[in-house]
Parts: sequence; C-alpha cells; structure tokens
Amino acid sequence: MTKAVILLSGGLDSATTLAFANSLGFSCHALSLDYGQRHRAELAAACRVAESMGVADHKTITLNLDQIGGSALTDADIPVPEVPGEGIPVTYVPARNTVFLSLALGWAEVLGAWDIFIGVNAVDYSGYPDCRPEYIQAFEKLAQLATRGGVEGGEYHIHAPLIHLSKADIIRKGVDLGVDYARTVSCYAADAEGLACGLCDACRLRAEGFRQAGVADPTRYRPTLAG
Amino acid sequence: MTKAVILLSGGLDSATTLAFANSLGFSCHALSLDYGQRHRAELAAACRVAESMGVADHKTITLNLDQIGGSALTDADIPVPEVPGEGIPVTYVPARNTVFLSLALGWAEVLGAWDIFIGVNAVDYSGYPDCRPEYIQAFEKLAQLATRGGVEGGEYHIHAPLIHLSKADIIRKGVDLGVDYARTVSCYAADAEGLACGLCDACRLRAEGFRQAGVADPTRYRPTLAG
Repeated sequence: MTKAVILLSGGLDSATTLAFANSLGFSCHALSLDYGQRHRAELAAACRVAESMGVADHKTITLNLDQIGGSALTDADIPVPEVPGEGIPVTYVPARNTVFLSLALGWAEVLGAWDIFIGVNAVDYSGYPDCRPEYIQAFEKLAQLATRGGVEGGEYHIHAPLIHLSKADIIRKGVDLGVDYARTVSCYAADAEGLACGLCDACRLRAEGFRQAGVADPTRYRPTLAG
Repeated sequence: MTKAVILLSGGLDSATTLAFANSLGFSCHALSLDYGQRHRAELAAACRVAESMGVADHKTITLNLDQIGGSALTDADIPVPEVPGEGIPVTYVPARNTVFLSLALGWAEVLGAWDIFIGVNAVDYSGYPDCRPEYIQAFEKLAQLATRGGVEGGEYHIHAPLIHLSKADIIRKGVDLGVDYARTVSCYAADAEGLACGLCDACRLRAEGFRQAGVADPTRYRPTLAG
C-alpha cells in the first residue's frame, strides 16, 4: 500500500483532505503540529479525526512558534478579529505552511513516501499567501532539491486537492466521503471543549459553507451564541 | 540598522556566517534549533558564540524531530559513523535545512527582515542535498511566494556566504573576522561538555580544514584521544 503524509490540523479542510487521501487508497500517515496555537482544541479534534478515519499512524510534532509570535494565533496579546478585515489577516502565522510542509517532507523521507497532502484552499482562503497554487508548485520543486529521495531520482507530489474548491464544495465532497464534521474544530478562538465563537473568519467561512452547501451545520457553538 | 536572521547551530560554519553578517553591518538575530539532536553541546556553543558576537537577539526554537527519526543525529539507535562512507551519510536529517530556513523565514517576517544567512557549504558538505546552490535558490523563490512580505512586493535574500568555500577557506575567513573557534562545537558525537570525538565526518572535515588552513586546531577533544 502506497504511503502518504497528510497534514491534519483538526479543522474542516484537513479532515476532508484526509478522507480524500484515504479514498484514493493511500496508507495515511497524519501529521499534526502543536505550534502554540491559541485554539488548542483543534489538536484534540485532530486526534478524533485521525482515529475515526483509521489512519496508519498519527504523530504530533511540538514546536514553539510563540517564540516568534507575529500572529493572533500564536501571540496572546493580538486578539482574533470578530469582524471581517482587509488584506492578509492578523491570524496569518508567518511561514506556517512552509514549516508544516517541511516537517511533512521530513517524515515522508523517513517513511519512503512520495505523496504529501495539505488542505489549503485558494478560494475561501482567508487571504493567506501560502495557500496559493504557485506557492504549492514552488514547494514541490523545493522538495526535489531538498531531499535524499529527490537527489536519487524520486519525485515528490504535494497534493492540495481542495485548492480550487469553494467551502461549500469542500463540504459536499466531505459529506460524500463520510466525514463527520462535528468532530472537527475550525474556530480560531475555540474554547478548551472545542466550542466555536461563531464570529472569527474561520467560523464565518465555515458557517457560510454549510449554508451554501445546503448541509445542516454540525458545529458546536458556545451556549451564549446559540440563544 | 538593517536586520538579518542568522541560523546558528553552534558549529564552525554557522559561527563564521554570523561573524560575516556582523561584518556587513547587519543587526544580527541568531536562531538556533533544539531538534532533539544527540550533540546537545552545540546548543550551549550557540549561546556562547551569540553572546561573544554581541547579537541583537538569540532565540532557540524547540521541535521534536526525534518523533520522525531517520537520522543518526535524532535517533539514538542509529550510531554516528566513525569511518568515511559512500553517498548521503546517515547523519543527514531529513528536510532539516528546509525546516530551519522556514523557521528563519517566519521570524524574518515578524522582524521585517529581508535577509537570512545560513552556513551551508557545497564543497566539504558531507554529501547533504540541502547544502547545494540550486536548493538555496529554490528556497529563495519559495520565500517570495510563501509570505506576506513577498506578496506585498518585498524581496527576500537567502545568503549562503560559505557555499563555495573549502573548510580551510572558511577557517581563514573566520580567523580574519576574529572568530574564536574554541567556542564552537562541530562533532556529531560531542559529549555534554562539548568535547569532540575526533572520528566522525564533522570532526574529520574540521581537523583537515585547520590543517590545510595552517591554523592551530583549537578543538577540545576527549582526553582518550589526546594521548
């Protein structure tokens, strides 16, 4: 069975990406990153999702990106915005996907895997530079040059199967693949139980996606917002 | 003063690179990585080197690459070779420089720095794929696409000032710049005090470099080897 490494944050997109890789017949090795993100609940969600999809392995690498800061997700002094803004939002974590893909590449090399899946999305992507197709292509090229496998003639593939899909399309695809979205956490300000704020960019994109897909939103919101 | 991020392992090459960046007038922000490497003494060396060169800041990011393993440097079950071998050696850490440069890029973004220095070397490089010029160029291209700064029109430069130098040339350059190599640790099997084995690839390249440069080797070897 061909092995693949799947970056699994525990959110809606990465859960769908894992289900997709699974459906292609890959032996899925899920990789989560504990980078000091304020929405710690997504790590618990990643474990739930990985277990429910029967992955071959699931690892969590810890690295203290809060040393660097510069993002509302890793610096407690920068609040998560509750209204839409212009340009690249403060929830952008500097070089995050590059760090994540590098670690996935390292694990892929050790496993002898040539396929890496990442759930980035260029349509509803919140304005992050490292979610664009040209970025993914540049990383694929780098992977060839960076590794023992590349030097020895192997070919890495960075799969971003959601990159051109709307959030509604992602949800439809996930529902077809049997993803239980109640297990996932997207909210940047999720509390310890994984209950969502309903106000941040991630919550807004997610709720709008369920609405447009015509799928009942299974997100567990905080009680104060439910009434 | 223009800021730069300098990857500082605590070895001979990165100490020389830091001294070089310093000599160009950059405000140097040194970044070390505690990735579970067996030669922990290089982290203490990095602190000594950073302090002695009066850097603007020095951060150490911790990440458990030993979760991934696959290298003699991160897997205690794979011994460090004591005789030269063929091809890419087992001390190669999968995707290490990609992970390191990604983290340096993240910090550079937060600092508003456009210059990143890395002490890779393609001549006496021990056979690592991620020490080649084409790799560095590919990372520079990726950095443009990966970041807020790149999207907004800024230009990142990945400086690898040692890439075409022999170990002897690096040492000559460092001596000119006033580097005290007794503070550095290169040995892959250095003990807790930073005393070198004298047998591994890193020790052999280093000792041969001092010999060829006609510079007395200040490396502190373990007593059993001194007699």
